Amino acid sequence: MATNGDLNRKLRMALVGGGSGSFIGRVHATAAVLDNRATLVAGALSSNPERAKASAADYDIPEARAYTSYQEMLEKENALPEDQRIDFVSVATPNHMHFPVAKAALEAGFNVMCDKPMTLNLEEAEELKKVVEKSGAVFAVTHNYTGYPLIRQAREMILNGDLGEINAIRVQYIQGWLRTKLEDTDQKQAAWRSDPAKSGAAGAYGDIGTHAYNLGRYMTGLLPDKVSSHLATFVEGRKLDDYGTTIIRYENGALCTLTASQISHGRENDLAIEIDGTKAAIQWRQENPNEMIFRQNGEPHQIYTRNPDAPFMSPMGVAACRIPAGHPEGFFEAFANIYRAAFDAMVLRATGKDFEKKDTLYPNIHDGVEGMYFIQQCVDSSQKDGAWLPLKHEAARR
Amino acid sequence: MATNGDLNRKLRMALVGGGSGSFIGRVHATAAVLDNRATLVAGALSSNPERAKASAADYDIPEARAYTSYQEMLEKENALPEDQRIDFVSVATPNHMHFPVAKAALEAGFNVMCDKPMTLNLEEAEELKKVVEKSGAVFAVTHNYTGYPLIRQAREMILNGDLGEINAIRVQYIQGWLRTKLEDTDQKQAAWRSDPAKSGAAGAYGDIGTHAYNLGRYMTGLLPDKVSSHLATFVEGRKLDDYGTTIIRYENGALCTLTASQISHGRENDLAIEIDGTKAAIQWRQENPNEMIFRQNGEPHQIYTRNPDAPFMSPMGVAACRIPAGHPEGFFEAFANIYRAAFDAMVLRATGKDFEKKDTLYPNIHDGVEGMYFIQQCVDSSQKDGAWLPLKHEAARR
Amino acid sequence: MATNGDLNRKLRMALVGGGSGSFIGRVHATAAVLDNRATLVAGALSSNPERAKASAADYDIPEARAYTSYQEMLEKENALPEDQRIDFVSVATPNHMHFPVAKAALEAGFNVMCDKPMTLNLEEAEELKKVVEKSGAVFAVTHNYTGYPLIRQAREMILNGDLGEINAIRVQYIQGWLRTKLEDTDQKQAAWRSDPAKSGAAGAYGDIGTHAYNLGRYMTGLLPDKVSSHLATFVEGRKLDDYGTTIIRYENGALCTLTASQISHGRENDLAIEIDGTKAAIQWRQENPNEMIFRQNGEPHQIYTRNPDAPFMSPMGVAACRIPAGHPEGFFEAFANIYRAAFDAMVLRATGKDFEKKDTLYPNIHDGVEGMYFIQQCVDSSQKDGAWLPLKHEAARR
Amino acid sequence: MATNGDLNRKLRMALVGGGSGSFIGRVHATAAVLDNRATLVAGALSSNPERAKASAADYDIPEARAYTSYQEMLEKENALPEDQRIDFVSVATPNHMHFPVAKAALEAGFNVMCDKPMTLNLEEAEELKKVVEKSGAVFAVTHNYTGYPLIRQAREMILNGDLGEINAIRVQYIQGWLRTKLEDTDQKQAAWRSDPAKSGAAGAYGDIGTHAYNLGRYMTGLLPDKVSSHLATFVEGRKLDDYGTTIIRYENGALCTLTASQISHGRENDLAIEIDGTKAAIQWRQENPNEMIFRQNGEPHQIYTRNPDAPFMSPMGVAACRIPAGHPEGFFEAFANIYRAAFDAMVLRATGKDFEKKDTLYPNIHDGVEGMYFIQQCVDSSQKDGAWLPLKHEAARR
Repeated sequence: MATNGDLNRKLRMALVGGGSGSFIGRVHATAAVLDNRATLVAGALSSNPERAKASAADYDIPEARAYTSYQEMLEKENALPEDQRIDFVSVATPNHMHFPVAKAALEAGFNVMCDKPMTLNLEEAEELKKVVEKSGAVFAVTHNYTGYPLIRQAREMILNGDLGEINAIRVQYIQGWLRTKLEDTDQKQAAWRSDPAKSGAAGAYGDIGTHAYNLGRYMTGLLPDKVSSHLATFVEGRKLDDYGTTIIRYENGALCTLTASQISHGRENDLAIEIDGTKAAIQWRQENPNEMIFRQNGEPHQIYTRNPDAPFMSPMGVAACRIPAGHPEGFFEAFANIYRAAFDAMVLRATGKDFEKKDTLYPNIHDGVEGMYFIQQCVDSSQKDGAWLPLKHEAARR
Repeated sequence: MATNGDLNRKLRMALVGGGSGSFIGRVHATAAVLDNRATLVAGALSSNPERAKASAADYDIPEARAYTSYQEMLEKENALPEDQRIDFVSVATPNHMHFPVAKAALEAGFNVMCDKPMTLNLEEAEELKKVVEKSGAVFAVTHNYTGYPLIRQAREMILNGDLGEINAIRVQYIQGWLRTKLEDTDQKQAAWRSDPAKSGAAGAYGDIGTHAYNLGRYMTGLLPDKVSSHLATFVEGRKLDDYGTTIIRYENGALCTLTASQISHGRENDLAIEIDGTKAAIQWRQENPNEMIFRQNGEPHQIYTRNPDAPFMSPMGVAACRIPAGHPEGFFEAFANIYRAAFDAMVLRATGKDFEKKDTLYPNIHDGVEGMYFIQQCVDSSQKDGAWLPLKHEAARR
Repeated sequence: MATNGDLNRKLRMALVGGGSGSFIGRVHATAAVLDNRATLVAGALSSNPERAKASAADYDIPEARAYTSYQEMLEKENALPEDQRIDFVSVATPNHMHFPVAKAALEAGFNVMCDKPMTLNLEEAEELKKVVEKSGAVFAVTHNYTGYPLIRQAREMILNGDLGEINAIRVQYIQGWLRTKLEDTDQKQAAWRSDPAKSGAAGAYGDIGTHAYNLGRYMTGLLPDKVSSHLATFVEGRKLDDYGTTIIRYENGALCTLTASQISHGRENDLAIEIDGTKAAIQWRQENPNEMIFRQNGEPHQIYTRNPDAPFMSPMGVAACRIPAGHPEGFFEAFANIYRAAFDAMVLRATGKDFEKKDTLYPNIHDGVEGMYFIQQCVDSSQKDGAWLPLKHEAARR
Repeated sequence: MATNGDLNRKLRMALVGGGSGSFIGRVHATAAVLDNRATLVAGALSSNPERAKASAADYDIPEARAYTSYQEMLEKENALPEDQRIDFVSVATPNHMHFPVAKAALEAGFNVMCDKPMTLNLEEAEELKKVVEKSGAVFAVTHNYTGYPLIRQAREMILNGDLGEINAIRVQYIQGWLRTKLEDTDQKQAAWRSDPAKSGAAGAYGDIGTHAYNLGRYMTGLLPDKVSSHLATFVEGRKLDDYGTTIIRYENGALCTLTASQISHGRENDLAIEIDGTKAAIQWRQENPNEMIFRQNGEPHQIYTRNPDAPFMSPMGVAACRIPAGHPEGFFEAFANIYRAAFDAMVLRATGKDFEKKDTLYPNIHDGVEGMYFIQQCVDSSQKDGAWLPLKHEAARR
């Protein structure tokens, strides 16, 4: 099939954020081009104008399109002829800049790939939802862990009833890199994540807890009812939570235990989930993403490997693979699967066709709003010593 | 060293419970003899007199000492000459019989090895504590998972400060065998465990939740402060909980998440624990008990294997091993380590020496009382929708 | 069922070897009593008379039956009344004493449980076979790894055709404890194993290579055709091999690669086997013995756990289990399964009944002879730079 | 740093092979662009002219540069202005076309990225070596498994002496996809691999055995002395080997066992290697590439994770990483690391600077020649029933 189908050309990408010291900016740049469907042509790579210009060569962005601010970028790109102008903006800034950049890009007519958590707070999220809806543009939030082939396989199996009614979810996202007060050094990643003005009301819960919540929601489709949360700050003097455990009740009575930690020695990025159904159970770990364990009483445990050639794989699972089983796919490929799904929608938009806006394969504005609601309610519940608070937001999709 | 040291003879064991269909009775009989330190000579193997007699040959118990009730056994054994009389009674009955049998055995002067949970409720537990104290006998509760060499290694490392201050515990005990309503079939194990009159106020929490709680307490020595619990019954019509998740706050501010399940498809006996300290973290799984992972930021992850010949092993870890690394030890050996420690005390008692009663290597009456308090407070908190309740019992030991 | 069925009493065991510093003597003593079917009543625990006497109390052997030599033991035991006399002798000496002790015990009418490798050389093995056959006694060789439940399960599946025709075997037995020249210290285990006069013509191949060979033969039933072997001594000054790799061709064309090492840093007792058939493949590791992986193209990988309650388990697999899945069984239990099968035969003999002598569940004199032939041919082939030599001995059983 | 440093522009890539049904063509296209350092601008994607043209849109190659043959491509590209002309040609055809395409591309002045095995036979390989040397161009062979960060880490540790003298290598490359006679269906991958005219003298050994051999050589730097090989064809009617095991003696006395299989049910791409040194041992599996186990007697086993931020990582290990530990990198990233190293050389060449030609980080013509020699000697030894043959080729580099 031709690259990007009827469009038959690569999509043109602009990156906001991603200057030196950035982690997620480079991830966006890599994931976006992995399938030869996009090319990075413009950027506003830093809030510091000099660094913004200086970083452009790192990405082979021509000097003319290395902008000193996102505002300049949006204005000048819009002035370019249509066959040069960017198609989409990837937002890879600290959290507090997601909202203004995304809003401006959408209002300028561009599609947006926004990092998570989507905004600084729920109010911004709800406002951004209106902007998205008005814009008609494609808007995705990079809850990238939903891009793993076996996560999509699991979702399809669960929605298909292979696990029966879901009773329980146990999800943990365990890291250790904030075990010391790294924000007091000049570690850029730690600094803004620990600063409420840039990170929002939550620390670990905003950074990774929201991924864990989203993963359970994505895989099961269960709608939440209420939440009881216990956040903690174990590193002295830190301003935000670095640990927390949360109980969620879903509408169907299912019980979820969600734990996020950034203070567990030696732990890297251990997002792990187990889901118990009345017919079967599933277990998956992000650090070993090409395997999923499926269990049924009385049967041998089954290891589903990411295997696009195997009959046991579901269509969504197969579609998310790039290479045969045994050839490990990883973080970039999963991230690229979010892009891939959004690209499909961007192509439809660019060629004047309708595209799905709510029930999308990629995490969208609905999920972004819900994520911000989750963070807010967890922080609030925790401040009330674990009081049960409602968790279902009207934006939530199944 | 001579078998049982100065005593220089095997200890004589009586078994109560353990008739056909029993699981734990055979475990006690096997674990007790594993080290050639005891011999099973008497039993009251069933509450059904015919079955009690008929089961004796299964254990090579001579007919004359195959009793039809524990009362008969205690009376007749006490009438035997001292050099034939039993030294200790192992209680392997359903929960509701632990208290009467243990109490009677202690009052008859015998040492007691009691299964867990120790009694039917907290009142019985507190009364039994008085009986134990009055008796001067050895009394152990078989929280057998504390008998694994690497658990003892971990405890010694933690008490030694190798992990620093403990911040968090995550412990899960996941099984699947009660996924269906097995108690409606003639499965004996399921039947009494699901019957409040025989099992007590909790199902999964009494059967396995209490093990998980005890394990965290044993490994860290942290004293609990309060508890918030959420029990659930996912199999329709079941009278007791089959799933539950609990938050515990320890006195030092540490946070514990404890989940117990008996409804997770395909899960066998997956007791797993992770402990986060300020200096290092530890992870262990019962189903792979000869390995423990020790992690520190910046260092390779370290796999401690059960290795009695290795310099990294602590004295308590080494003492709990029987064979070299790579020769898997398992459930029986861990169980036998509870017996081994209790035997040491029994030998001291039998030779007229003092022996430690509170700070014992084996789980004792203090732990038994605390376990019953844990169950009571979890059930109570759950009925109050997760309200925080106190968890520290005066019997608790560090 | 009554202990030892119709016999309805425990079998009486004598131990030769096993004095202080012994590893395998204690293993025999533990494995033999694990099921309450035997009791250790006599011993000649060391070739050193004082140590032989002094070690008796370690095993609760009464002084009167603590003999100073195996000859004395056999004579005096035979003089005891039949209802006190030992039933069997367990031979846990260094290799060079296996033959004289086993021969004398058999000729004295006792059953024999003999450690491996069975004798010092093939000639002794072939002579011992005649002695066994003449004696009418039960004779087992403790190739204990065949006692693991999942190994028996695998054997039954393979003989049943579940894997189709067997094409390839890959078996490795990797240890590291002889990485340094431990025999120059006073480490008793290392000393005799490295001494050709006590160990035989091979080092690692006699100690563990023979286990690996036996395991492949036991699991598949394939008859060997020829062998090409490459032994090496990597620790300078060592007299025997400490590493080696061997190619075996079976009669059906299957190809086996067998590697044994005692010089691999950090390795403990890593016996691992993979078997490829035309229909399926199997993989198992001794250090994680309660799992076996079964694979078929196009299917999820299947983990068979040792699960006596699961429908997928074969009768032989179930019969080799003692406790439910998830409760780890280990080395002792597997070792005890060799005893258990031999006990069944001993009971038949003791009650005057016929018992199978060739196609036994326990490794027998046929396997012992074959093991010695394997060692001899490997050493010989290696000395001829890997020349192909015949490997099928007439004693070999399917 | 600017993309491609002083060159400050992307490198221009042409792909030969990679039309529909190709696996490795898409891999080259993805790996080459992963770091935003190259862009695919031209191709001769199939030997079938129609398919060659039709496949161009799949890669966003403009029609004008979608050539119908590699000859046409080389000629027309050379006629383009220097600032449009391709920089390098990636050869992703079946084996028999590697030589003619690579030779022509080199003679036309282009750099070449060539798939493995490098040629159809040793003669071609040796001739190609002369062409490379004469050309002055960059030439790499995609032994991609050497691109994994932990493989480079291991190599650096071994060359640094961390393992001491190397005694033994055990390497296995186990697949199952050719368990059935897939070449009789229209499976394109299987068809040419099983055809001696397109694949060369070996089947599994040419396809994957050569990877396994290269990996051991790359990691240890040991020079080979001689080889004894046993190839087998287990699928009836197949023309080439689908299984084989080989013994290699290195000059220093080390012993290597190398097994390759394409008929092991359920196995995907299980390349695994263990290396024993006098000081330590290392173990790594391609299917779990972000972990490596390092073992030393008396120490806990150490799991090195791919962790660019950890002090235990070596410079080469760190340099091969793209994202932090716990964010799985996989097959594409390792493949891209071969490209990355070759790009560094191409940039030097393009900017008129010297570049290393023998001791390169990427596998080069020396390794390619050696690989073909390995295949030839294995096939020859196997035909002589495992006779020892020399294995050291004069092209071999340490």
